Amino acid sequence: MYDAENTYKPWHQLSLLVDEADPKKIIAYLESINPADTALAVSRLGVETQSKLLTLLSPKDAAEVIEDISDTQAADIIEELSPREAAAILEELDSDHVVDLLGELDAEDGNAIIQHMSPEDAQEARQFLQFAPDTAGGLMISEFLDFRSYQTVQDVLDDFQANHDEYVHYDVQYLYVTDDSNRLEGVLRMRDLLFPKRQTELGQLMIRNPYKISADATLEELSNFFEEHSLFGVPVVDCDNKLLGLVLPEALEEAEQERSVHQFLGLSGIIGGEEFRSMPLFARSGRRLSWLSLNIVLNIIAASVIAMYQDTLAAAIALAVFLPMVSDMSGCSGNQAVAVSMRELSLGLLRPTELLRVLAKEAGVGIANGAALGLLLAAVAYIWKGNIYLSLVVGTALAINTLVAVCLGGSLPLLLKRLKLDPALVSSPLLTTVTDMCGFFLVLSFASMVLDKL
Amino acid sequence: MYDAENTYKPWHQLSLLVDEADPKKIIAYLESINPADTALAVSRLGVETQSKLLTLLSPKDAAEVIEDISDTQAADIIEELSPREAAAILEELDSDHVVDLLGELDAEDGNAIIQHMSPEDAQEARQFLQFAPDTAGGLMISEFLDFRSYQTVQDVLDDFQANHDEYVHYDVQYLYVTDDSNRLEGVLRMRDLLFPKRQTELGQLMIRNPYKISADATLEELSNFFEEHSLFGVPVVDCDNKLLGLVLPEALEEAEQERSVHQFLGLSGIIGGEEFRSMPLFARSGRRLSWLSLNIVLNIIAASVIAMYQDTLAAAIALAVFLPMVSDMSGCSGNQAVAVSMRELSLGLLRPTELLRVLAKEAGVGIANGAALGLLLAAVAYIWKGNIYLSLVVGTALAINTLVAVCLGGSLPLLLKRLKLDPALVSSPLLTTVTDMCGFFLVLSFASMVLDKL
Repeated sequence: MYDAENTYKPWHQLSLLVDEADPKKIIAYLESINPADTALAVSRLGVETQSKLLTLLSPKDAAEVIEDISDTQAADIIEELSPREAAAILEELDSDHVVDLLGELDAEDGNAIIQHMSPEDAQEARQFLQFAPDTAGGLMISEFLDFRSYQTVQDVLDDFQANHDEYVHYDVQYLYVTDDSNRLEGVLRMRDLLFPKRQTELGQLMIRNPYKISADATLEELSNFFEEHSLFGVPVVDCDNKLLGLVLPEALEEAEQERSVHQFLGLSGIIGGEEFRSMPLFARSGRRLSWLSLNIVLNIIAASVIAMYQDTLAAAIALAVFLPMVSDMSGCSGNQAVAVSMRELSLGLLRPTELLRVLAKEAGVGIANGAALGLLLAAVAYIWKGNIYLSLVVGTALAINTLVAVCLGGSLPLLLKRLKLDPALVSSPLLTTVTDMCGFFLVLSFASMVLDKL
Repeated sequence: MYDAENTYKPWHQLSLLVDEADPKKIIAYLESINPADTALAVSRLGVETQSKLLTLLSPKDAAEVIEDISDTQAADIIEELSPREAAAILEELDSDHVVDLLGELDAEDGNAIIQHMSPEDAQEARQFLQFAPDTAGGLMISEFLDFRSYQTVQDVLDDFQANHDEYVHYDVQYLYVTDDSNRLEGVLRMRDLLFPKRQTELGQLMIRNPYKISADATLEELSNFFEEHSLFGVPVVDCDNKLLGLVLPEALEEAEQERSVHQFLGLSGIIGGEEFRSMPLFARSGRRLSWLSLNIVLNIIAASVIAMYQDTLAAAIALAVFLPMVSDMSGCSGNQAVAVSMRELSLGLLRPTELLRVLAKEAGVGIANGAALGLLLAAVAYIWKGNIYLSLVVGTALAINTLVAVCLGGSLPLLLKRLKLDPALVSSPLLTTVTDMCGFFLVLSFASMVLDKL
C-alpha cells in the first residue's frame, strides 16, 4: 500500500542537516516546516543528534526549537547539554517556560544551569521556583510593563518606541503602576493611552486598587477569578503587595489542560510524568513496571479469596467462568463513578466533604444498574446451564457487587482528596482490588450455601 | 464532626430567594458569591426552580448565570424554557457560546429557539451551526471589529467612543480591514493607532495579506498556527476570502481541554457527554448501563474460553486463582500502551500510519515487563504450591500475554483512528476482551499440556 503520509519523514532530513553542521540550512529547513513537524522531527533524533542540533544553533534559535517541543522532551535534551549552553538557551525563553523546564530537571542539574545564567535571570528563576507549579506564583510570567504614577503618557510612548524590539514579544494588555518599593498602585489598559493629552500623568489615568491575586492562589481560585472578571491577565503580588508577575488566562488554561492529561495518564497507569516512545526502553519499561508491580500485589491479595474457596469452586467448576465476569463488570461500574466524582470535584460541583450526597446518588444508580446487569448475567447462566441456583448465585453477586463498586468508586476520589492523595493515581487500583475481592467472595460464599444444588 | 465547609449551602439560600421571586435580591446574592458557587448553587436546584430562576431574571442577568455553569447543564435548563424566553437569553451570549449551547440541544428545540431570535442573530447562529464543533468555524466568534481601508484613524476612534458600551465586552486586539464584499484585506493592531496622525487612512497602516485560517481548519491546524504565530486571534475566512469570524487562542485551548476531558471520561466508560449527579437517576443510570451492557457481552465472549477448558480447570483448581490475575495484569499493561499512543497521537508525535514503529517500541517494553511480571507471578505460584509446572504455566502465560497486550494496546488507537472510530471509547473494551481471552487461553492450554504434573 502506498501511503504518501508515511513517506514524509522530516527527521531524516533534519538528521542529515545536523550532520552537515550548517546552522543556516537547519534554520531554513525548520522554518519551512510547521511546529508540529519540528516537534516530531526533533523527538525522533538520537540523543546525541539532539544535543548537537541545539549547540549548532544560536541560543535564540535553539530556544525556538525548545518552544516547539513538550517540556518533558525539552528537559531530556537540556540535561545533555553543558550547564553553560543550557543557561544561554533558557535565557531566551519566557520566564514561565524557564520555570517549567527547570521543574522537570533534577535539582542538581537545575542549580548548575541557574549558576550560569545572568545574575538577574538567575535571581528571577530562583524566586519563581519557590512557588508550587499549580499556583499563581508557578504560572506567572515576568514579562509585564510597569511604570510610576508620576510618569506621563508621553513617557510611556517614548519607552514603547525605545524598547519596541523587546516589548513586541510581550503578551501584555495592561500597564501596571507601582511605587518606589515596587508595590502595586494601579493599572491602565493600553487603550486608556489613546485619548488623553500626552502630558497627563499615569496617576490620574490609572484605576486604583486593581484586581490582583496572591502568589499562592490555587488553580481553582485563578479559575474563579477569570470567570468573574474577563481580563487579559491578573497581577500577582506577595504579602506586601509587591508586584511579582502576571498570570495570563492562557497559562491557567494550559495548567488545567495539564491536569486533565495527568488524570487521563494516571488512570491508565502512566505515572511519574509523560512517556514518549522516543525515550529509552529502560526508562519506559521501568516506570510502567513500577505501577504494575504494585498492581500485581493488589491482584494477589484479591485472588487469595479464590484460594480460600477452592473446594467450593472445584465442586461447581462452572463458577470459574463467572468469577472474572463479576469482578470485571463491577470494576467497570466503579470506574464510571470514579470519573464522575473526579469531574465534579474539578468543576467545583462537588465538595470533598459531601460523601453522603455521593453515596445517596450512587446508591440509586447502583441498585438500578446492579439489578439490570444481575438479571442479564443470571439469564446467561440459566441459558447455559439450566440451573436456577447457579443463575441466582451469579446474578445476586453481580447485583450486590455493582452497588458496592459504584458507592466505593464515587466516594474514593473524595476520601483520597481529603487525605491529600492523588485520585487519578490511586482510585483505580484500590477500587479494582476491593471489587475483585468482594466479587469473588460474594460468588463463592453464596455458592457454598447452595453447593449441593449447583 | 463539625465541618464549616459542609454547612455552607448556597443552593438553600438561592432556592429561598427564587421562592420570594424578587429578581433584585437574587442578583445581589449571586453577585456576592463567586462563579463556582453560583454554578454549584444552580446545579443543585430542582428543574422547576432552575427554570423559575432564569425567567425571573432579565435575559441579560440570566445570560450571566448561564455563563457560569457548564454547557451540558445550561442546555438542560434552556430546554425547560419556552423558545421565546430561551432565545432572549441566548441573544445576550457570545456567538461561540450560543453555538455550543445549541449544539447540546436536539435539532428541534434548537430550531424553535433560533426562530425566536432577531433575524441577524438567527442568521448568524444558522451560519455558525454549519461548522463542525472542532473546526475554526465551530470555535470562532462574531465579536470582532472590521473597517474599510478608506476610513481614518479618527473614524475608528470616533467609532470606539460611539460604541464603547458594546465593544467593552469584545475580547479583541486587532482591527480587520475588509472590502465592500466583506473580503479580508488587512489587519491592524490596536497599538498601531497610537502613533499615526488621526487623518491617516487605515489602508496606509494596515498589514496586507494578514494571517488567516479557513473555516474548516482542524484543531491540529489551529494549534500549529498559534504555535507558529503568537497572535491574540486569527481571522476565519471562507473559500472566497470573506471574513466570517475570529478564533481566539483561548477558544482553541478550551477545545483541547474538552478533548482531554472527553478522553478521560470515555476511557472510564462515561459516554454520550458529561454526567452530573444533579441529572435525573434514569438518565445517569441508562447512559452508564448502555456502555456496561456492551461490556458484559464482551466479557461473556472472553469467559467462554474458560468454559471450553472446564475439565482442565477442574483437574487443577489452583489455576482458578491465577486466571483473573493474568487477565487483569495484561489489561493494565495494555491500557498503559493505549494511553501513550493516544497522547502521542494528539501531540502529533505519532502518525496513525506508523504501526510498525509502535509495534517495535512496544515489543521491547512487552518483553521486558512480561519477563519481570512473569517471573514475579511464577515465584508467587511456586511459593504457594511448590509446583514448578504450575509456576511455569502461569509465569509463561503472563509473560506472553503482556507482550500481546502492549502490542495490541499500542496499535489499537492508531487502527481505530484510521477507521474513524473514537479511540477513547473503543480501545479499552476491545483491548480487555482480547487480552482476557488470550490470557485464559494461554493459562489453560499450557496447563492441558502438563495436566498430569499439576
